[in-house]
Amino acid sequence: MFKVTFKFGSGEDVTTFAQEGENLLDVARKTNVAIDAPCGGNASCGKCKVKLVDGELDSPKTRHISDEEYGNGWRLACVSKIMGDVAVEVPDIASAYRSRMKVADLSSKEEIAIFENAKNDLEAAGLALTNSMEILEISMEVPSLDDTMPDNERLVRAIKKQTGATSVRLPYQVLTKMARVFRDSHFEVRCVARTSSAGDIFVYDVYPKDAEVVIGGLAIDIGTTTVSALLINMLTGEIIGKASAGNGQIRYGADVINRIIESMKPGGSKKLQEAIIEETINPLIEQMCRASGFLPEHIYRMAVAANTTMNHLMAGMEGDPIRMEPYIPTFYKTNSLFASDIGIHINRDAHIIIAPNIGSYVGGDITAGTLVSMLWNRPEFSLFIDLGTNGELVFGNSDFMMSCACSAGPAFEGGDISCGMRATDGAIEACTIDKKTMDPSYSVIGKEGEKPIGLCGSGIIDVIAELFRTGIINPKGKFVREGKRVRHDEYGMGSYVLAFEEEAGSVKDVEINEVDIDNFIRAKGAIFSAIRTMLASIDFEVEMIDDVYVAGGIGSGINMENAVRIGMFPDIPIEKFHYIGNSSLAGAYTMLLSRDAERKCYDLASNMTYLELSTVPSYMDEFVACCFIPHTDTSLFPSSVQES
Amino acid sequence: MFKVTFKFGSGEDVTTFAQEGENLLDVARKTNVAIDAPCGGNASCGKCKVKLVDGELDSPKTRHISDEEYGNGWRLACVSKIMGDVAVEVPDIASAYRSRMKVADLSSKEEIAIFENAKNDLEAAGLALTNSMEILEISMEVPSLDDTMPDNERLVRAIKKQTGATSVRLPYQVLTKMARVFRDSHFEVRCVARTSSAGDIFVYDVYPKDAEVVIGGLAIDIGTTTVSALLINMLTGEIIGKASAGNGQIRYGADVINRIIESMKPGGSKKLQEAIIEETINPLIEQMCRASGFLPEHIYRMAVAANTTMNHLMAGMEGDPIRMEPYIPTFYKTNSLFASDIGIHINRDAHIIIAPNIGSYVGGDITAGTLVSMLWNRPEFSLFIDLGTNGELVFGNSDFMMSCACSAGPAFEGGDISCGMRATDGAIEACTIDKKTMDPSYSVIGKEGEKPIGLCGSGIIDVIAELFRTGIINPKGKFVREGKRVRHDEYGMGSYVLAFEEEAGSVKDVEINEVDIDNFIRAKGAIFSAIRTMLASIDFEVEMIDDVYVAGGIGSGINMENAVRIGMFPDIPIEKFHYIGNSSLAGAYTMLLSRDAERKCYDLASNMTYLELSTVPSYMDEFVACCFIPHTDTSLFPSSVQES
Repeated sequence: MFKVTFKFGSGEDVTTFAQEGENLLDVARKTNVAIDAPCGGNASCGKCKVKLVDGELDSPKTRHISDEEYGNGWRLACVSKIMGDVAVEVPDIASAYRSRMKVADLSSKEEIAIFENAKNDLEAAGLALTNSMEILEISMEVPSLDDTMPDNERLVRAIKKQTGATSVRLPYQVLTKMARVFRDSHFEVRCVARTSSAGDIFVYDVYPKDAEVVIGGLAIDIGTTTVSALLINMLTGEIIGKASAGNGQIRYGADVINRIIESMKPGGSKKLQEAIIEETINPLIEQMCRASGFLPEHIYRMAVAANTTMNHLMAGMEGDPIRMEPYIPTFYKTNSLFASDIGIHINRDAHIIIAPNIGSYVGGDITAGTLVSMLWNRPEFSLFIDLGTNGELVFGNSDFMMSCACSAGPAFEGGDISCGMRATDGAIEACTIDKKTMDPSYSVIGKEGEKPIGLCGSGIIDVIAELFRTGIINPKGKFVREGKRVRHDEYGMGSYVLAFEEEAGSVKDVEINEVDIDNFIRAKGAIFSAIRTMLASIDFEVEMIDDVYVAGGIGSGINMENAVRIGMFPDIPIEKFHYIGNSSLAGAYTMLLSRDAERKCYDLASNMTYLELSTVPSYMDEFVACCFIPHTDTSLFPSSVQES
Repeated sequence: MFKVTFKFGSGEDVTTFAQEGENLLDVARKTNVAIDAPCGGNASCGKCKVKLVDGELDSPKTRHISDEEYGNGWRLACVSKIMGDVAVEVPDIASAYRSRMKVADLSSKEEIAIFENAKNDLEAAGLALTNSMEILEISMEVPSLDDTMPDNERLVRAIKKQTGATSVRLPYQVLTKMARVFRDSHFEVRCVARTSSAGDIFVYDVYPKDAEVVIGGLAIDIGTTTVSALLINMLTGEIIGKASAGNGQIRYGADVINRIIESMKPGGSKKLQEAIIEETINPLIEQMCRASGFLPEHIYRMAVAANTTMNHLMAGMEGDPIRMEPYIPTFYKTNSLFASDIGIHINRDAHIIIAPNIGSYVGGDITAGTLVSMLWNRPEFSLFIDLGTNGELVFGNSDFMMSCACSAGPAFEGGDISCGMRATDGAIEACTIDKKTMDPSYSVIGKEGEKPIGLCGSGIIDVIAELFRTGIINPKGKFVREGKRVRHDEYGMGSYVLAFEEEAGSVKDVEINEVDIDNFIRAKGAIFSAIRTMLASIDFEVEMIDDVYVAGGIGSGINMENAVRIGMFPDIPIEKFHYIGNSSLAGAYTMLLSRDAERKCYDLASNMTYLELSTVPSYMDEFVACCFIPHTDTSLFPSSVQES
C-alpha cells in the first residue's frame, strides 16, 4: 500500500492509501475527493488535471497536457496509476466543484421575486394557492372506566365527527406518539392532516393543543449540475429557508449519460442515490433547518422537479432503459414515493410529489418550468428554453404545446471548457474586449476585488461574442488576429488569455482556446438548431415567436444581445427575452403550495407533444449549419456583425 | 472498570466490564446475558440466583438464600454490586430460560393436527379458506419508439385490463426492481398481488414469468413467556416452517406489568421492542427460512395474536395507559402496521394483521383463540380457558359471548415457583406419589433418561394434586406428614424433594415448598374464582357448562383430573375437557389463510362482552374461598378426596 495525499489551495490535505497500479481518479472518488471528470474518466475531457508535488505517477502525456504543463507536473488523474507514495495538488478550479459549495444566492431580491411572481401569475390565472395540508384542532372526550374506547378509535371518531370525513388514517408514527400526547394535553390536540381528493384524511402528526405547529414543505430542483432547495410554510407559502449546492453525483460524470453508465455498475445505483440524497439533499435540509430553527420531521411534504434521469437516480431506479432505445423510463409520474423509502431526512411519511416527466429526455424540471412560464395561459406564441446540461425547449400557447430536448453538454454551466466553472465566486460572468488593444474588461462573481479563476456560462457567451465582434476569431471560431493575449501552441491551437497567472486567482492563466470555443459553438448550435427544427416541424418561423423565456443555471448575468450575436437565440427584438431564473424550483414551489398548480402540471405533461429531434431528417443539417458564428446563413442574424 | 465473567453449564463464558458499584443484573442485561428475573429485579422473586466462583460481590443475604446457600456462594444478582473483578456461574435453570431455546415440538403430529383441525372446523362452519393474496400472470406489450408508455403505467394498464380493477398500486420496492425484471423477461411477469375488499390491487412484488413464486405468510403467537411462529404458503395453507422460542423480553420481567414499568424508563420502550423483534421474532423467521430454503422477503403478510401489552410493546407503543386506570390501550385493532415500520425482517411492505384486542387485559390471543375454539358456532355453552401468565376466559355460544381476565401470574409456566420452569427439556411434566413411601414417580421432558431440573405447569398440578391426595399436604397447602422427602427449614417452612441433587440434572435438589404451593394455589384460585364469578354474573352455574376448551403453554401433558382435584377447573365429567394447544397461534394461522376468518375474528371482538372482575364485589370473597385445595366449599369438588 502506498500513501496518497491530495492537497488543496485551502491548505487542507486528504490522505489515503492505495495499491500499486490503482487509478488515481478511482482513489480520489473512494476517498470522496471530488476531482471533476465530466467525461466519466475516459481521458476525453481533460478536466481532471492534478499537479504532482511529491513522488511519481505512471501517467502518459495526453492531448490535454502541453509539454510545458507535463514538465511542471500536470497529469490527468483518470490515466494516472499509483506506483509509490505520492502527493498531488487538486487545482482550485476542480475543487470549486466540490459539492458543498454555495452556488447561487437565493436570498437576493431578484431570486425571491421569481417565486413571488410565479405565485402571483398562477393566482391571476385562476389557480387557488391552497393545498391539501391543514392543522385540525381536535377535542376528544377524556376516557373513563365507562368509556374505554382505545386512543386510535377515539381520535378517528373525533376527526370524523368534526370534518365529516368517512375515512381517517393514522400511520405508525402517529400511533406510537399518540398515547403520550393525548395524556399530556388532556385529549385536546392539534393534528397535521391532509385531505385527499377523495375526501379521506391522513394524519401526519399529532401535537398537544397549545403547541406551535408549522407545516413545513420542501421544494427541490435537482439539476444535473446544481441542486436548489426551498423550505416553506405550507399554509402561508412563506419561504423559511433556501439553499443550493452542487449535485454530489458530479464526480460520477458531468452528464446524465455518464451517470447512467456509472449507475449500471455493481452497486452503482446505490452509490448514485447516496450521492444525491445523503451527500446533497440531506445536507441542504439540515442547513436550512439549522439556519431557521426548524425540525426536519416537521417537513410533511416534498416536491421535486428534475430531469427524468435525475428523478430516477434519486429514486434508486435503473437508468439504462432511459438511455437505450426505445428510451422507456420506469415512470413519468408516480405517487408511490415517500421520504422513508429513499432516506430523505424529513418526516418519514412525507409524500414526495414529483413533477411529471414527458419522456426520457424531457423531464419534470421542464413541466415545472413550463407551469411557471405561464406559456399555457397566453394566446401569444412563446418559447421556453431551459439551458441546462441538456437544453430543453417548449413552444406553444394556450392551445397547444410542443417540447424537445437537445444535448447541449455541460458548456453552459462551465463544463467542457478548459477554464469553465459554474456561476460562483471567481467566475468571470461578463466581459467586453477592446477592439484595438484586445484587452478584456470583465466582472467577476464574488466579493470586491475577487480574482478570476475561470469562466461561467454567461461569461463564455460574452467572451465569444466579443472575440467575434472584434475580429479576433472568425465565424469558425479560429483565432485570426495576433497579439500578446493570443497564443498558439505547438500543434497550432490558438487561445486567448483573459487573465495571466499573476492576475488570476488560480495557479495558471485563465484562457479560452479553440477547443473550448468549438465546444461552446456546438452547444449553442444544438440550441438554435433545436429551435429551428421544432418550429419548422409545425410550419413556424422564428420571427413568429412572441416571447422567449430563458431559464437555467447560466446565471442572471446572461447578456441576451450577445447570446443572439453568437447565434444561440433567434434574432428577434431584445425586449422579447425574459430571464426567469430557476423555473424548475419555482415550479416545484408552486406545486407544493397549490393543489391546483400540481394538477395543472400533470395536465401540462399529458397535453404536451414531444418531438424526438433525432427522428427529424433535417436536424443534423440544421445543426451543422448552426456550428458557425452566428450561422452559415448570416441573414438569420442581422444583428450579428463583425466590426471591421 | 472491573472484569465480570458469566459462566454457564455449557462451558461458554461471557465476559464484560463494569464500573464499581454497578448492579450485577443490569450488567448481565447490558451484556445480553439473560438471567431470569420475573419480578423485574426488585429482590422479591428470588429467581436471579447466581453462584460466585471467583472474586467478591457486595450482596446482602435475602430470604431467598439460606445460610448454607450463601456460604456456598449463592447470591441474588439483582441486589449484588460490583466491587472488583468477579466471576459468577449462571445456573442451568436460569440459563434454560435463555431466549434461543426450543420450547415446544411443533412438528409433532398432535401439533400439526391442531392447525388442520382449526382449518377444517372453520371450513365446516362455512368460512372460505381463501385470502386476498394471489399471483397474477401479466403479459404486457413490449415498448417501442411508437409506444413509449413508462414501465409503471404499462404494468398498471395490463393489470387493470386483465382484472377489471380500477385502482392498482405499485409500492417503491416494486418500482425499483421493475425495469430489470421487465427487460429480463420480455415484459411477461408474475405479480404477487393483493385485492382489497374495495377491489383495489396492491402489487407486492414482480417476478419474471418463469420464476417459481410462493407467497409466504407468517403467523405468530406472542405470549408473555413463549413466542411461536409458523411460516406458511398463503395459497395452499401448507405449513413450511415452525419454530418457537422464549420471549426475549423475559429478562425485563416475567409478567406484563413489570415489562410495562420497564418500558416506561428512558429508552425502555425501544429496548422492549428490540427484545421481542430483533432478539426473538427475527431469529425465528431466520431459523424457519433457513431450514426451508425460503427467502424472508417472500413473506408478504403476517398475522399476530398476542395479549394487549405484547402487541403494544411489539409495536413500540406506550404500555403505561394499559396498566393505569381507566386502562386505555392505543388500539384494539389497527391496520396501520407494516413490517418495515417495526423492523420485522420480511418483505418491507408486508401488512401486519393483529388479532383484535377486546380490552387492556383481554387481547388478540384470546380473540384468535376464541375463533378456533368454535365456541361462537355452537348452540351449547362452552368455556374457553387460556392458561397464560394472565388467565383469560370466554364463555358463551352462538348467541352471546363474555370474557374476563385474571392475573394468574407466571405459575402455570413455571414462574413464581422456586424450581419452576417452562415445559422444556428437564422439566417434570407428570408425577404420581406413592402414598406409603411418599416417593415420586415422574416423567421428564427430553431424551430418554433426561434428569429433572425443575417443574413445568402440568408437573406442578400433578405434584400438588398427589401431595394432597396422599395427605402429605393439607387443604391449605401446608406439609402435615414427615419423611425423608419432607423437610422444614429454620423458619419452619416445609418442602418436598422430588429429586435429590445427585438424581437431578441441576446443581441442587428439585423440590417444591410451601411458598411455591401457596403461589400455585393463588394462581389456580384466580382461575376458578374467575369462572365462578363470570358465570354467576349471568346466572349460570358451573354444571351448566357443556364443554371446556383449555389452551395455553401449560403443555399437552396436563392431567385434567388432577386439575379438577386441586380445584382449578370445575368438577364436571372429564370427557368434557379438551386441550386445544396453542389456540392463539392456530387463530393467527387461520386469520392469515382465510379472509373470512379474519373478518370473523373482528366480529367476535366487537360482539364479545368484557367483564372487569375487579368491579364485581363478590370476586375477592370468591377468590379467597378458592385459595384452598380444592375449595372451602368441598361440595363443589366431589371428585377431590384425600385418601385416608
